[in-house]
Amino acid sequence: MKAVHLGEAGLALRDDLPRPRPAAGEALVRLTKMGICSTDLELVKGYRGFRGVLGHEFVGVVEETDDETWFGCRVVGTINLGCGQCPVCAGSGPEHCPHRTVLGIVGKDGAFAEYLTLPLVNLLAVPDDLPDEEAVFTEPLAAALRIREQIPVSPKARLAVVGPGRLGLLVAQVLALAGSRVTVLGRRDESLALPRRLGLDTGLAQEQDDDSYDLVAEATGNEAGLAESLRVVRPLGTLVLKSTFAGRATVDLSQLVVDEIQVVGSRCGPFEPALRLLATGAVSVTPLVAGEYPLARALEAFEHAARPGVRKILLHP
Amino acid sequence: MKAVHLGEAGLALRDDLPRPRPAAGEALVRLTKMGICSTDLELVKGYRGFRGVLGHEFVGVVEETDDETWFGCRVVGTINLGCGQCPVCAGSGPEHCPHRTVLGIVGKDGAFAEYLTLPLVNLLAVPDDLPDEEAVFTEPLAAALRIREQIPVSPKARLAVVGPGRLGLLVAQVLALAGSRVTVLGRRDESLALPRRLGLDTGLAQEQDDDSYDLVAEATGNEAGLAESLRVVRPLGTLVLKSTFAGRATVDLSQLVVDEIQVVGSRCGPFEPALRLLATGAVSVTPLVAGEYPLARALEAFEHAARPGVRKILLHP
Repeated sequence: MKAVHLGEAGLALRDDLPRPRPAAGEALVRLTKMGICSTDLELVKGYRGFRGVLGHEFVGVVEETDDETWFGCRVVGTINLGCGQCPVCAGSGPEHCPHRTVLGIVGKDGAFAEYLTLPLVNLLAVPDDLPDEEAVFTEPLAAALRIREQIPVSPKARLAVVGPGRLGLLVAQVLALAGSRVTVLGRRDESLALPRRLGLDTGLAQEQDDDSYDLVAEATGNEAGLAESLRVVRPLGTLVLKSTFAGRATVDLSQLVVDEIQVVGSRCGPFEPALRLLATGAVSVTPLVAGEYPLARALEAFEHAARPGVRKILLHP
Repeated sequence: MKAVHLGEAGLALRDDLPRPRPAAGEALVRLTKMGICSTDLELVKGYRGFRGVLGHEFVGVVEETDDETWFGCRVVGTINLGCGQCPVCAGSGPEHCPHRTVLGIVGKDGAFAEYLTLPLVNLLAVPDDLPDEEAVFTEPLAAALRIREQIPVSPKARLAVVGPGRLGLLVAQVLALAGSRVTVLGRRDESLALPRRLGLDTGLAQEQDDDSYDLVAEATGNEAGLAESLRVVRPLGTLVLKSTFAGRATVDLSQLVVDEIQVVGSRCGPFEPALRLLATGAVSVTPLVAGEYPLARALEAFEHAARPGVRKILLHP
């Protein structure tokens, strides 16, 4: 089958890969829509040393499985596969299982292909009236919702999202859901047009006063964005790290101590609420789409996704 | 009066400084016992650019004040002086007031002297049967107790304190108060003899398995200690930063995100509970004392306090 494969020689479009075979309890999913995320771009740069088929944001149709009730079902799927045997799996779930694989990220071929396999327990049916091009945002929207599982966010709090990109605009919309005023911060005014269109407040990061937000979500994944986030979060405030950082960053830890900042790393979140928000239209995702490519043009799609200011690039088989 | 003064030329013992004069609502306190803390050592190295009389851990006797009920009272005192006018002072208190001064740390002469002044509102009477050499630990013990104001600590959690030093051993004892098992981690076995004597579990940091603690308190203030702390804290765990870090440190932020670690900066804490714990003997402090010097030999005392493995050095006038 065709797939976007990351090997020793870098990213390649392959058409010689075998179709994966579902094990007991797994489904074979024929992919219909996929999304490129910043983590995919970091993996290409060498983050985590992944080798295999990339991709973890997808919609598809179940074509083979033990349990025929799933057959033909349009699905999205959670991406962490725990061992199911360890205390972590029994306690908090597969997301932090030390033996886990992660679709298209750690030890398991991903979604930028014609087919993937996932355990049935990872799958969720997509509501009939939710089109593929919205359902494909379930995974990143769930990641944005993760913040609400981790910390209470007061509706009165002054909230900022640093980075008006593909993830930042989902995070900002999720933070705004409970009536909070959310300011999306970027470095260039052009990058703020879309957040304004989505009804969010916006501001130039460099023009914000020090200590002016109670909670800041960092969604740039670069050191400059982190420094700006730490500058604008107030003493006793909260900094949510929402982006994958490739490599190490330099941080003024004495600021964290003296100002008693709470830093919260945040990764994968709940799919079912994400599907509900997409189904009701409470979170707007299609304006984020900057382009769509067939798998055969995936390398071009990756280049497009890596350009500054570009938000979601979709793929289809 | 005599005082330990940090000036452009470095640390100096001066005897030409004027006795400070209390303003309305303030007390003049004659000092009787003082403690050297790692922050003092960092200030000498240039941290925060402080110039003036060092020292913020003290016991003394009120000699002058408007309110005669305080006269002759043996006191300890909180170290943050807020403006009393701003929303931060009205909300969370003076500790994070943007206009604050801090005794011996920011814009206010400190306790390594014959006298200091503080607002009466900062003072707490010391119970009669609590000797000076224990009461002088009120400030650092309060800082250790700050953790309990900030986060819930499950008595069942696996807790580690990295750094068996003057602050680490207070933090470890505070974490153990509610029945938790606390392991104090150091790099050399000699440094673990005292924590063992205090009834704490101990271990060599480099021999701990990855991800083996639910909550780790970093109390070394150096980058190696931070790296060790991040190594041993489990995914979804909590890292408390309890030490002043001079300068910037390099951190693998992707670990914070992928493992969803919560980092909590922690500084000044509540004095009244600290005094109660000292009065009941629930926290043991005198075994931490490694030496005591008169103010006249304060430079020698600073050198002693800076030696590896040395815990609390006390001063008296």
